[in-house]
Amino acid sequence: MLLRSHDAMSGRFITFEGVEGSGKSTNIVWTDYFLREHGIDTLRTHEPGRTKIGEEIRRVLLHTRDEPLMPMTELFMMFASRTQLLEEVIIPALRSGVWVLCDRFVDSSIAYQGGGRQLGVKRVAALVEAMGDLYIEPDLTILLDIPAKLIPARLSNRTLDRFEREDEAFFERIRATYLAQARELPRMNVIDATQPLEDVEQAIEALLSPLITAD
Amino acid sequence: MLLRSHDAMSGRFITFEGVEGSGKSTNIVWTDYFLREHGIDTLRTHEPGRTKIGEEIRRVLLHTRDEPLMPMTELFMMFASRTQLLEEVIIPALRSGVWVLCDRFVDSSIAYQGGGRQLGVKRVAALVEAMGDLYIEPDLTILLDIPAKLIPARLSNRTLDRFEREDEAFFERIRATYLAQARELPRMNVIDATQPLEDVEQAIEALLSPLITAD
Repeated sequence: MLLRSHDAMSGRFITFEGVEGSGKSTNIVWTDYFLREHGIDTLRTHEPGRTKIGEEIRRVLLHTRDEPLMPMTELFMMFASRTQLLEEVIIPALRSGVWVLCDRFVDSSIAYQGGGRQLGVKRVAALVEAMGDLYIEPDLTILLDIPAKLIPARLSNRTLDRFEREDEAFFERIRATYLAQARELPRMNVIDATQPLEDVEQAIEALLSPLITAD
Repeated sequence: MLLRSHDAMSGRFITFEGVEGSGKSTNIVWTDYFLREHGIDTLRTHEPGRTKIGEEIRRVLLHTRDEPLMPMTELFMMFASRTQLLEEVIIPALRSGVWVLCDRFVDSSIAYQGGGRQLGVKRVAALVEAMGDLYIEPDLTILLDIPAKLIPARLSNRTLDRFEREDEAFFERIRATYLAQARELPRMNVIDATQPLEDVEQAIEALLSPLITAD
């Protein structure tokens, strides 16, 4: 896998992962404020979407229709949104010294399409490889972990999209794939997201501090 | 590369390739009538598009907007449309004994994104590999060849899409990549599409006859 050297990238790249309702949005906002208090310029973004083209892709992906969207189609669409976001937003920000906080990245494709849709981790890894030097390895990945059975209660106030309508077995496969990835990747840190929010924030702070000190 | 055995696929898969204005649409219609006259059930389709999801992807791909669509994004989108079309339309038709005539397929990605957008043939081949057993090798590919400098005159009566607005150098790279592929792939046959239409039809007939006789 190609890694970009940090010489050309002065910003840090932090990704947030987890199933629906795990609290990614809330904790990204908190992280953003925390870093800004330390005088760090940040940019908050998310997958799929954010760019105009990415939002068009997002609509195709999340919209529920009378035609099933095939797993491989879903996988290719996720990567299409990803490369657009990298070239247009993430890479220029990192080059200019901004820290990028991204809600979902490559690990989501591994967990959702590789695990959840059962396309296999290797197939997703082949697409990451095909990205060439557009692939940026995150400096830190925070996996907010909750058991699948807690998801419905956490989504009770939302209109559900095509992913959120999936069953518990789908989310259990995702969680298992996420946790297996975390055991292999030193950059990927699991935080128990069933804890009170203050404890989650404290755990995130402990992961951010070495990065802040190093800069 | 994984090939599907013909045991499970009783239909034949014929793809048409060439730059804009090379006469693919006209010659697919002629091929369709020719095969039907021989009592063969056919299905005409095209990339990108055809399925509902494919048409949504096609709109994102062909629409000209104030934001550039990045080459890797274009490549992933083409494969997203392709896998949807294969699972929903092409594979079921071939299984039921229907001959599928497809306007563009994998060779278009190799020529347009690999050659035209200069992403490289190997990168496109890696995505074909990632398709696994969804990839169907065409039985016959007809490449309608015209020099890039003839394209503008042939498109003079159309509203141009995002591809058709590209310059001559882009189409010369595509043509060169197509011709290089044709030298390597026995299934890919080059027909001089600057000839009178009757001569093109005669050349296509000569390629179809062995397939019809074999069945």
